[in-house]
Amino acid sequence: MIGKIFGIGVGPGDPDLITVKALKILRKANLIAYPAPEDGDSLARSIAAKHFPKGCAELVIKTPMLTDRFPAFEVYERASNTISKAANDGKNVVILCEGDPFFYGSFMYLFSRLKVNHIVEVIPGVSSMMACSAVLEAPLASRNDVLTVLPATLTDDELEEKMKLSDSIVIIKIGRHFPRIKALLKKTGLIQNAQYIERATMQNEKIIDIEKVDETMTPYFSMILLHSRKRAWV
Amino acid sequence: MIGKIFGIGVGPGDPDLITVKALKILRKANLIAYPAPEDGDSLARSIAAKHFPKGCAELVIKTPMLTDRFPAFEVYERASNTISKAANDGKNVVILCEGDPFFYGSFMYLFSRLKVNHIVEVIPGVSSMMACSAVLEAPLASRNDVLTVLPATLTDDELEEKMKLSDSIVIIKIGRHFPRIKALLKKTGLIQNAQYIERATMQNEKIIDIEKVDETMTPYFSMILLHSRKRAWV
Repeated sequence: MIGKIFGIGVGPGDPDLITVKALKILRKANLIAYPAPEDGDSLARSIAAKHFPKGCAELVIKTPMLTDRFPAFEVYERASNTISKAANDGKNVVILCEGDPFFYGSFMYLFSRLKVNHIVEVIPGVSSMMACSAVLEAPLASRNDVLTVLPATLTDDELEEKMKLSDSIVIIKIGRHFPRIKALLKKTGLIQNAQYIERATMQNEKIIDIEKVDETMTPYFSMILLHSRKRAWV
Repeated sequence: MIGKIFGIGVGPGDPDLITVKALKILRKANLIAYPAPEDGDSLARSIAAKHFPKGCAELVIKTPMLTDRFPAFEVYERASNTISKAANDGKNVVILCEGDPFFYGSFMYLFSRLKVNHIVEVIPGVSSMMACSAVLEAPLASRNDVLTVLPATLTDDELEEKMKLSDSIVIIKIGRHFPRIKALLKKTGLIQNAQYIERATMQNEKIIDIEKVDETMTPYFSMILLHSRKRAWV
């Protein structure tokens, strides 16, 4: 018997924002794989760890941060080979993904390799975008709104052009780009509509007035949400 | 004691795609409110009904479909008043939302009224967009991709302009606009990248070759996903 491979979204941070479906799959795992930074703990593991079956094998995938750099192919090749071998040995393998597996996650680099020879079932999760919207009490989109997700890594011209054509804007991957994004929001007159949040639904969640954000300390897990018509949905 | 009000995402259709957090809140409800079409059953109720506490009161909010029309304010006014009164009487009120509460949901019309006098806690859910992506095995976005959600109700010119500026495109609210959207995808050369899906994760889920979709029968719960660079993430 060949084992099954699952990619499960564990949600944005609050361990209770995992789905019942993901939990059921997790409890039958023989091997649990998850990404971790090169020098730190895995967020995905910390979200789901209390549900791991006793004594379950684990595979830590030490992943370089992907803000600008092209992903490290070798890391994903090696992890895929390990996972593929485990499945061929009859093991159920569960790959943990922060938020939703297919929303800017590194899971797709494993998925693209594994799906060649395996059936990989993907369980969607609550994404960080929905978590930020809920915590900020800022509806993402309604009626005929256009919603655009913009990585802060784009150039100012690209960002401005795309922001003009959208009603609701979510800026992700902020990190060191924060000062540039803030200046752009001032220039376009959108800053009074913008809300900033870090680590939504995690224990150290912070909502900060965008004018008061420490520009030297903006973490990877931060987002800016704004609507061009401030709360037109009322 | 004033009761609490919650808006909870129940996920896209599969009852197991509800979160543990939403379940815990649901089980303590004294009144459960949910939208339903004027002449049919409530999808939100059908997703979550097996978790309703025994004998819990229910409030059906008969909602006109919102594809083009402005929402029926009276419906939301009346429902908000009922919910507000229940909370003032010490009841915990849970409002069910299909998918995620703030992603094109009608919940925000209740939220905007209730938050004036109440604390309303919003529990994010798995959105239909993430469910479609998972079922289609089509990653939404990666690295520096721009992701844009486009209601099919926009004009052809608006859609074309915004599609040109995006990497990953999700077209929602298709319904009777399907023939026009299909023609536009042909004109722009994007049709070979487009994937069509109906009712993702529901029992009657269907993935259909976009050329073979019955143009007279496209349901509200359908989406088209496409990436301008077909699977550039491999």
